[in-house]
Amino acid sequence: MPTARETRQLKHEVAAFKRRRLLEEASHLFFSNGYESTTLDAVAERLHVTKPFIYSYYKNKGELLAEICQIGIQQSLEALDWALAQGGSASSRLKLLVDKVAHIIIENQEYIVVYQREEKNLDPEDARRIRDMRHRFDLKVATLLEEGARGGEFEIGDAAMTANSISGLISWISNWYRPGGKWSPTEVVMHTIGLAMRMVTPTRA
Amino acid sequence: MPTARETRQLKHEVAAFKRRRLLEEASHLFFSNGYESTTLDAVAERLHVTKPFIYSYYKNKGELLAEICQIGIQQSLEALDWALAQGGSASSRLKLLVDKVAHIIIENQEYIVVYQREEKNLDPEDARRIRDMRHRFDLKVATLLEEGARGGEFEIGDAAMTANSISGLISWISNWYRPGGKWSPTEVVMHTIGLAMRMVTPTRA
Repeated sequence: MPTARETRQLKHEVAAFKRRRLLEEASHLFFSNGYESTTLDAVAERLHVTKPFIYSYYKNKGELLAEICQIGIQQSLEALDWALAQGGSASSRLKLLVDKVAHIIIENQEYIVVYQREEKNLDPEDARRIRDMRHRFDLKVATLLEEGARGGEFEIGDAAMTANSISGLISWISNWYRPGGKWSPTEVVMHTIGLAMRMVTPTRA
Repeated sequence: MPTARETRQLKHEVAAFKRRRLLEEASHLFFSNGYESTTLDAVAERLHVTKPFIYSYYKNKGELLAEICQIGIQQSLEALDWALAQGGSASSRLKLLVDKVAHIIIENQEYIVVYQREEKNLDPEDARRIRDMRHRFDLKVATLLEEGARGGEFEIGDAAMTANSISGLISWISNWYRPGGKWSPTEVVMHTIGLAMRMVTPTRA
């Protein structure tokens, strides 16, 4: 028989699973039909649950949207912090972070696109908080670029603009990558690492 | 006294001017308040014109949105065709096109953002037509990259993915450039040309 502790643990896992499924299905409806045209009734119907079930997780549709919009950047920030905490050269940390974050963009493509489209529909405070996270991401990348430049590994122009462009290079994948299409996730990630490194590697005349 | 021909010419210019002002103000409202929350009454009010005046240019709000969404990519395609038609090396044509298109993105930033956000609200046929234009843009860039690679000027991995990334590098400017902010349009354009060239320039070990 499971211990009380194991039972609690399983309950947590089930709750997290339900929450994730809710986000997935809501995001899928927002992606296909737009946020404004999607009702919580439609989300409930898709999941074969009741609306009170949804309300036990989210106060309203806006809270659901905020969480969906935040997923990509939150995971990206965590991946960035992880990559920065690794030892090794600035190049190897840049490679690690582009690798991780490009995978996150590919795996969360629908969430990223919903964020790009529906930012306008976020509660202004949520919108600001998520924008701050993106800004923090770019600042940390810029700091890494400056460190690499000081050490002679990188040759860059403006570090902040280059960081914006590297973030953009990765984020833009969500606009052209097609699951099951011409290129595998690995090909897309390798391509992105290659271009990011070219953006910072010293050029020899 | 102006000739009949001069009068006709002026009439055309005035009509084009009115059309442009209409697009600007409508786009501004879509940008600030979202497409769905913006009425044609609000557009008319902002321009101090009547709704029938708007209807003399556009059948409905959807037609206005389609024209707004199309502006950036249409001008970009024209700039691309112009750049490709210039003589010179593949590098010099790539530089020219990044230069022109980056300026277009900066000058039409609001239109580009409205397109990114409101693509979902386009008539499906308009959405497809504009997506086809974007695809044509990327294909032509890929062809130029392949030409440069064959001639030894460029060293690239997959030409199509690299073209997608170069388009993304330029388009992404609309997400971080701030008019009157830290960087001038020229700085942003020069930065973008520099990174695009690094993406394709042969690396020497």
